[in-house]
Amino acid sequence: MSKNLTKRSEDYSKWYNELVVKADLAENSGVRGCMVIKPYGYAIWEKMQAELDRMFKETGHQNAYFPLFIPKSYFSKEASHVDGFAKECAVVTHYRLKNAEDGSGIVVDEDAKLEEELIVRPTSETIIWDTYRKWVQSYRDLPILVNQWANVVRWEMRTRLFLRTAEFLWQEGHTAHATKKEALAEAELMQNVYADFAENFMAMPVIKGTKTESERFAGALETYAIEALMQDGKALQAGTSHFLGQNFAKAFDVKFTSKEGKLEYVWATSWGVSTRLMGALVMTHSDDQGLVLPPNLAPIQVVIVPIYRGEEQLEIIAEKAKEIMDDLKAKGISVKFDDRDTYKPGWKFAEYELKGVPLRIAMGPRDIENGTVELARRDTLTKEVVKQEGLSDSIDNLLEEIQKSLFVKAKAYRETHITKVDNFEEFKEVLENKGGFISAHWDGTSETEQRIKELTKATIRCIPNDAEIEEGKCVFTGKPSHKRVLFAKAY
Amino acid sequence: MSKNLTKRSEDYSKWYNELVVKADLAENSGVRGCMVIKPYGYAIWEKMQAELDRMFKETGHQNAYFPLFIPKSYFSKEASHVDGFAKECAVVTHYRLKNAEDGSGIVVDEDAKLEEELIVRPTSETIIWDTYRKWVQSYRDLPILVNQWANVVRWEMRTRLFLRTAEFLWQEGHTAHATKKEALAEAELMQNVYADFAENFMAMPVIKGTKTESERFAGALETYAIEALMQDGKALQAGTSHFLGQNFAKAFDVKFTSKEGKLEYVWATSWGVSTRLMGALVMTHSDDQGLVLPPNLAPIQVVIVPIYRGEEQLEIIAEKAKEIMDDLKAKGISVKFDDRDTYKPGWKFAEYELKGVPLRIAMGPRDIENGTVELARRDTLTKEVVKQEGLSDSIDNLLEEIQKSLFVKAKAYRETHITKVDNFEEFKEVLENKGGFISAHWDGTSETEQRIKELTKATIRCIPNDAEIEEGKCVFTGKPSHKRVLFAKAY
Repeated sequence: MSKNLTKRSEDYSKWYNELVVKADLAENSGVRGCMVIKPYGYAIWEKMQAELDRMFKETGHQNAYFPLFIPKSYFSKEASHVDGFAKECAVVTHYRLKNAEDGSGIVVDEDAKLEEELIVRPTSETIIWDTYRKWVQSYRDLPILVNQWANVVRWEMRTRLFLRTAEFLWQEGHTAHATKKEALAEAELMQNVYADFAENFMAMPVIKGTKTESERFAGALETYAIEALMQDGKALQAGTSHFLGQNFAKAFDVKFTSKEGKLEYVWATSWGVSTRLMGALVMTHSDDQGLVLPPNLAPIQVVIVPIYRGEEQLEIIAEKAKEIMDDLKAKGISVKFDDRDTYKPGWKFAEYELKGVPLRIAMGPRDIENGTVELARRDTLTKEVVKQEGLSDSIDNLLEEIQKSLFVKAKAYRETHITKVDNFEEFKEVLENKGGFISAHWDGTSETEQRIKELTKATIRCIPNDAEIEEGKCVFTGKPSHKRVLFAKAY
Repeated sequence: MSKNLTKRSEDYSKWYNELVVKADLAENSGVRGCMVIKPYGYAIWEKMQAELDRMFKETGHQNAYFPLFIPKSYFSKEASHVDGFAKECAVVTHYRLKNAEDGSGIVVDEDAKLEEELIVRPTSETIIWDTYRKWVQSYRDLPILVNQWANVVRWEMRTRLFLRTAEFLWQEGHTAHATKKEALAEAELMQNVYADFAENFMAMPVIKGTKTESERFAGALETYAIEALMQDGKALQAGTSHFLGQNFAKAFDVKFTSKEGKLEYVWATSWGVSTRLMGALVMTHSDDQGLVLPPNLAPIQVVIVPIYRGEEQLEIIAEKAKEIMDDLKAKGISVKFDDRDTYKPGWKFAEYELKGVPLRIAMGPRDIENGTVELARRDTLTKEVVKQEGLSDSIDNLLEEIQKSLFVKAKAYRETHITKVDNFEEFKEVLENKGGFISAHWDGTSETEQRIKELTKATIRCIPNDAEIEEGKCVFTGKPSHKRVLFAKAY
């Protein structure tokens, strides 16, 4: 197959858009801003879901499901939340269509107007806390550790596949606790779970930190985030975990009787990651040949392509391939044998490169004679001839090596793209020419943050959890600061 | 805990509504007709999903995801589909809210009116076939075997938890084929997959059959259904698989070039089951004490309740319990040790009865002395003292026995509730006093079917796949018929 993929160095943004479509991950639909996630893309998302779901359950969480629709009035109950979320959203106003009287098709039935409009959930804090009121009476009902896998809608004006779509898929955890301390610990725990997932499954290094007030989730007292760096030097917020204090409990009147018999408001957290991670995955590892997938999330880890002329050769190769497949499957490795006669080997090679399959085995009549196969690595684009004997062991090791190597490579890139900067000229210069994170002092005010954003488009991505205490001066105002924060342009 | 559950014999409908809420399966939300699926209920749904998803994949299907919204005009493209689905639905007309000028809260921004209204999907044939047009050019692109797990919305006026809700969760398979024969085989295959799932996991016997024209899915040429019988003698359609012919391909112009180089329309199927199955599960097995869950779908298969006074006794029991749990987990059996000190054993017994946990182990100091446990079966409400030695093996066997026994019991009930009837007086009498399926001759016309429905509320549930050819006379009109069909009142 011919790839015709724009090079990253030419136009990174175009490269991304093309790759997502050509590699069969997703495409735009007939509905403005809504994407179709194609089977291959969805298979990656399913692997992400499975690992995250396992991690959530191992940390004591259960899944549940709450309504898609939220009555408009619910949003007004939490003051800061309404400004953040009840603006650009899909509003359901009617519940019936009818045939037009002039026979021109179907029209909205004006008699079926809802008394109160329903909002398609942009996030579910309000409907969930309205529910928790019924679930919580006593300290014995706490904690509630619940997650939901769902679709949400935010009416974005400019959309890009996975990165920013009107509808997207995500998980949202919503927990309720008896104490502030417990809720804070939960929010931090989930930041760690997300970082663990990003680094060990996506092979994507992340920086753990907290958000500044202006970048916080609407309604949160603290937002813990994991921030990743894409190959074009732009940052991407990959997951957030919010400490919500008692804001939603107060807005929805959720109280409990403590062990001591006192009536108290419940403490809350919420946390989420979305199909945006698919975009992050693509932009962290892929190259000008197509996707590069970490083995831990690749739907197909190994593909076997037979090189043959005629049925007889194919049969012999297929028999050997079956042996190899059985060995690999026994080790839990996913493998596909592509014996389609409708495409040539070269076309298939290009296709699996484009789709980021970590390892490709090619086998022809000479390999059968010699007891060998040709083994090609997608990440390094190298290939070698190896013995069939012990193949499944070498592949098992190699997949692990690829997984590690992708992380090391991405981390090396990230490390060389955190630049300490102490004056604003240098700030602008680094941002413009090198990109990446800029580690700089900041005076702690939203005004300065806003001004820098206006001048450079860079925002404070986070205050790293491990930021050292050091005396310094704000890179913009020169006012005193005792910690560096990370600035970057971001997705 | 006190159950206060209405008896089935007193009011079956009330019993169901109460049980669903009290057993923590689901509850009504603040949004009309939309339910909250609680963690315990969702855990059962997740088990259903996992098994079905495995079966879909084993039969060659892949998952994907299509938009929640469907442009209004898409519905008009398939004539019979629009009448069936584009009526009672949630209509999105605006994409923004704003603060009211009088400060009274937030209101719909009239400037943000959509040019074309969007319908929240009641089913996805239209948006999916609009997408398939882009995916299909050649016979090499076929078949497309795709499924999606999603939420859908149908604006129902009278709703009941799980059985009929405005929003529900389901899966919808949408396949595209080169030939009519292949599409028919697919629709039949999925009917078999559903029947297999219903019988072997839900322990719910089903009758496989086809729907009459008036009961068919809007846009289908044939609807294959599985029909179950609830304990009150009413039928429940548990899953459907539709042969759609070329209707959607024609409506959305989906053509392919065949091997012979001819341009042809694609053949289609769609098939789905929903959270309605949760209602079917409850109504098939449960009793006046609460839920009865088949072991294959029970989130907790075994619960261990310690009977103790003081920390010291608890510690000794906990140690033994841990051994038993390790043995059970090694066999893949899910087990919970409930050592909460906030509830008494009797309360816990009642709770797990209500929640349908198949096996309960109680262990006190005397059991520790004697090397025994008390083992209670939820389905028969019997208990016996058994040796701790070999306990995991006996439990493994017992779970299998319970699974089978539930199916046998439900099947026996179903068999005694299929009544052959040859005249309309008897038809009405059986329907009113005995309920269940009525096996009767029918003249094959929609008029007769409609008339019987008006007079008795009974509908033709299906024409069984295995209906024998026999000459007879329509139970209503006396006209000739050569097959019996199954009538029943239905959910």
